[in-house]
Formats: sequence, C-alpha cells, structure tokens
Amino acid sequence: MKLKKPILGVDMDDVLADSYQQSLDWYERDFGIKYTKEELEGQYLGDVIAEDQIDIINSYFFTEGFFRTIKPIDGAIEGMRLLQEEYDVFIVTAAQQFPQCLTEKNEWLDEYMPFIDWQHRIFCGHKYFLDAKYLIDDHAYNFEYFKGSPILFSAPHNAGETRFFRVNNWEETLTYLNVTSKII
Amino acid sequence: MKLKKPILGVDMDDVLADSYQQSLDWYERDFGIKYTKEELEGQYLGDVIAEDQIDIINSYFFTEGFFRTIKPIDGAIEGMRLLQEEYDVFIVTAAQQFPQCLTEKNEWLDEYMPFIDWQHRIFCGHKYFLDAKYLIDDHAYNFEYFKGSPILFSAPHNAGETRFFRVNNWEETLTYLNVTSKII
Repeated sequence: MKLKKPILGVDMDDVLADSYQQSLDWYERDFGIKYTKEELEGQYLGDVIAEDQIDIINSYFFTEGFFRTIKPIDGAIEGMRLLQEEYDVFIVTAAQQFPQCLTEKNEWLDEYMPFIDWQHRIFCGHKYFLDAKYLIDDHAYNFEYFKGSPILFSAPHNAGETRFFRVNNWEETLTYLNVTSKII
Repeated sequence: MKLKKPILGVDMDDVLADSYQQSLDWYERDFGIKYTKEELEGQYLGDVIAEDQIDIINSYFFTEGFFRTIKPIDGAIEGMRLLQEEYDVFIVTAAQQFPQCLTEKNEWLDEYMPFIDWQHRIFCGHKYFLDAKYLIDDHAYNFEYFKGSPILFSAPHNAGETRFFRVNNWEETLTYLNVTSKII
C-alpha cells in the first residue's frame, strides 16, 4: 500500500519545545546569572559556566518537571497544525536517556499539540531508522545517516553547523515546506 | 554514511513480553476462569468472555503494573542477544496509547534486556516510518506499509493470518535469521 502524504519527522527539544531556554531559566534560578541565547551562539550553556556547576545543569534533564514545563517555541503549535495538512507528521524525539521525560513529553504533547495523536509520537534514541521525506532537527548528528532531506532548525548550539539546509524559525520552516500561503 | 549492520525491528508485546498470557492471568485472578492460549487460537480473550467483563479486561492495559510485570516470552532474551551480533536491533513498540506503560516498558527492558541500550528503544504508535530490513511483529497491520521483510510472530490472535511469513517461536526466528548455529 502507498501512504497518502509524505512523512515529515519533527524533533521536539529546541524545535517544538524551547529546552535551551528552560536550561537558561533554571540556571538563572539556581545561580542568579542570566544568559541569553544570543550571547551563547555557537555554544552550550555547559561551555561557559563554572566547572563545578556543570553537574547541576546536567541533572536538570533528569529532574521531575523539567521537560513538562518547557515553553513551546514561537510558531511551533500553529506550524505543526499547518504541516499536518500537507504531510504525515511524526514527532521524533530522543527520550529514553532521561526516563522520567517519557511521561512528561507525552503530557506536554497532550497539552500543546493534542492534534498530534499517539500514533504519530515516536520516543527514541537514534533516529536513523526513520524513513521520511524530511526531518526537522537541531542536532546535525541526526542527519548523518538520514536518507531524506535534512532541515536544521537553528539553536544556539548549532550556530557553527554548515553541512545542512538551515531554517531559523517556524516561519522559515513553513516557507521552505510550502505551507506559508495558508497563514498569510 | 552507511550503517554496518542491517536494521532489524522487534515488537515487544507478544514477541518479547508475553502480554497475552498476562491478560489470561489477570482474567483468571479477577473471574476465577482459566483460559489457555491453545483454547483461544484465532481469537482475543475479549472474543470469548461475557460482555460485561470486556471493559474490565480492556482496563488492564491502563492499569499500573500490567506492563511492568509481564513475563518474557521463552527464548526472547537470549534470542535478542544473538540477533544483536548480526543485526542493528531496535525494539519498536506501541506505547503512547497507554501512557503509564511508557515508563513501565522502559523499566521492563532495563530489567530483562539491559543490553538493548536506550538509543535502540522506539516507543511509538504507527510503525510504517521504520526503515528496516526485517520487522518481527505479531500484528499483521504493522506490515501493511512496511517495505522490508515481515516476520509474523505467532500469537493466539493471529492464528488465521496467512499473508505474511510466520515464525512460531524464538527458535524458528533465529533459524530464519541465520543465527541459530551459535546456540547449538
């Protein structure tokens, strides 16, 4: 049988959910120092903070509530709705590394993107099993074995990455995927 | 880049974990009636019980502990170890439909198959995104869009299915996938 629409994979952290900002916010809460994404271009938060703080920020990913309370990226919710009209949209997100996030990511999707049904949520590790026309992701390593067309979604940590087609935000994503006209 | 080993997808319920038997056991616990898999060939438990019991057995799948305490299928643990030598083995299991099972399935794998690392665990709904050479599954509907070679793992409910290549147990699975010689 043939599928009706092309498959489009969409990563969650730093594409749908603003995980990078959540780390900055929790760091500011704990250490009283505010960094912005702009200041950290080309880097992870862990690259610029004191060495004895690194274990603490790494522990955020294992902390209850971290993934559940991340804010959506601007334009992501409406963008996903629009993409669904033209594509068979699957969320493809690394999750099992931080076991408590399995439930939290599922609840987050229930809250912000209930129109992505459970059949279209993929919680995984590697992503090279994915047979999709496109994959939108902020991590270049997820494109290394990908046979479809990569779409690198800009995040501070990937600013230096030049190997893959890049979009800077959801507006550019929709333009590239030819669904913009519907929101003008 | 090219992967070193062919990808092999393996379903969890009724291929690795004896979920069908777990339903029979819980049903016996609640209603005092014992059914065997042999008696139910070609059917689900729900097909043979009283109508007013159906909601109760359907609720098992949403009940804490159900997925966590399922027994492994005979030969599955050793079979998975052997398959890993020749294949890039991914577990591909429907999970988000029953949200509490996300954590339970992950813990089950930690207990029985810790050698399947988090990067090789896929919790999902549909499986037609999977680009694999083989998929071992008890549900024929997972093969309908699958481009690789289907391997139908026998379970009572699929006894009447004739469209796909069938294995009856883990020994037959390993023979078909050419890894038997290592356990003789």
